[in-house]
Amino acid sequence: MKKGRVYFNGAIHQVTLAQDGSVRLPDGTALAEEQAHWLPPVQAGTIFALGLNYADHARELAFKAPEQPLVFLKGPNALIGHRAHTARPHDAEYMHYECELAVVIGKQARNVSQQDAYDYIAGYTVANDYAIRDYLENYYRPNLRVKNRDGCTPIGPWLVDAADVPDPMDLVLSTSVNGKETQRGTTRDMVFSIPWLIEYLSAIMTLSPGDIILTGTPEGLANVVAGDEVVTEIEGVGRLVNFLADDRSPSLSSV
Amino acid sequence: MKKGRVYFNGAIHQVTLAQDGSVRLPDGTALAEEQAHWLPPVQAGTIFALGLNYADHARELAFKAPEQPLVFLKGPNALIGHRAHTARPHDAEYMHYECELAVVIGKQARNVSQQDAYDYIAGYTVANDYAIRDYLENYYRPNLRVKNRDGCTPIGPWLVDAADVPDPMDLVLSTSVNGKETQRGTTRDMVFSIPWLIEYLSAIMTLSPGDIILTGTPEGLANVVAGDEVVTEIEGVGRLVNFLADDRSPSLSSV
Repeated sequence: MKKGRVYFNGAIHQVTLAQDGSVRLPDGTALAEEQAHWLPPVQAGTIFALGLNYADHARELAFKAPEQPLVFLKGPNALIGHRAHTARPHDAEYMHYECELAVVIGKQARNVSQQDAYDYIAGYTVANDYAIRDYLENYYRPNLRVKNRDGCTPIGPWLVDAADVPDPMDLVLSTSVNGKETQRGTTRDMVFSIPWLIEYLSAIMTLSPGDIILTGTPEGLANVVAGDEVVTEIEGVGRLVNFLADDRSPSLSSV
Repeated sequence: MKKGRVYFNGAIHQVTLAQDGSVRLPDGTALAEEQAHWLPPVQAGTIFALGLNYADHARELAFKAPEQPLVFLKGPNALIGHRAHTARPHDAEYMHYECELAVVIGKQARNVSQQDAYDYIAGYTVANDYAIRDYLENYYRPNLRVKNRDGCTPIGPWLVDAADVPDPMDLVLSTSVNGKETQRGTTRDMVFSIPWLIEYLSAIMTLSPGDIILTGTPEGLANVVAGDEVVTEIEGVGRLVNFLADDRSPSLSSV
């Protein structure tokens, strides 16, 4: 099952993806994707993000893959839904997309072993965890200006039930900018696997339903600019569309 | 007005501090502090924490005071109420308290100037943002093991209305361990002031009601161990009591 959340006709609705590709409201009404104002598919709790979790991406940035996971937290203000506009600071030289598999926790997890980790996952979605390279002082724990601006992390459109993703460690990720593919990788190349991360994090603290782990991005980053359409896609999970807008654009006030 | 939240007789209540020093339920019932199970005084949104925001404390750690604020985010799992027990990892050599003034945002803030910043503050409370030095790799952005364990940040007991704190930049902070004072400072010594921080953060992102800024700690850190009673106190804001327990202690399961 694929579930999303939209704002439509003055209320928030949970929607599902129908066989014919249409978006269905609970009363059965069919919508085209473009008719709905998409929200992040889950109400986020704590949002964890991984830095340099694909060896090829670490090499691309001239880093050794880390021996300990590089985890930082993000605020819920960073999330925005499918087909939204993300602000690009007009004076930033380099802003790049990051296609990432997002793991959504389904039940409280504390001291969970790798073997049991999958039992604690509600499902998966797609995230595009933009970074503004200009503001980066430290790859190991990016600061708020790099990774926590309002709407800098599109996520969605669908939360896909864990049961419908047979092997999340074997999925193709890709990104296209204005219709041209610029990034391609596979979750097989993660340095720290999903079960490993759940064991690691739940040994430090309690994970709760709605917590989200953004698992990092493979190589293939490129600068994107205002006006670009950026599509991040993960096999079997979804296709997330985002539009970049100049941060001085009046259109941003309505998104 | 001083407002708190307690769990009592099977429900969560907002309580107030009466003139006679008793804790009052909404129906007027008076409780002693020890009778209630205290919760953090606000339902936290995004939690910001400042590193090295007192020049004397930076010197104590042999650092220069930073030129840009060192801000990191914490998850809500880290917060715990007044009079609670905080787990101390049994194998950690050095865990220290940090008495901090906590600023609670009262309304949505975006691009707010220093001049207007106080209008966006709901009130103030006391936090004790423990750190486990053993796990620290990087002072500038402490990792989850240092700063994000469950219950590692006692906060409360009271949210004091902003109107009742005439000058939050001129308050004495102090910490006592088992009745003996070990830390004393004043908010006058902050490197980045409260209005400055609100301008800085709200230029990056939107602050929302319930967001909390932990503004850093002055010098006077010391190791604390299981069994210690740690009292962090801020003039006119409150006196926050915390007990440290060995992380293997069965008593922790009930807190």
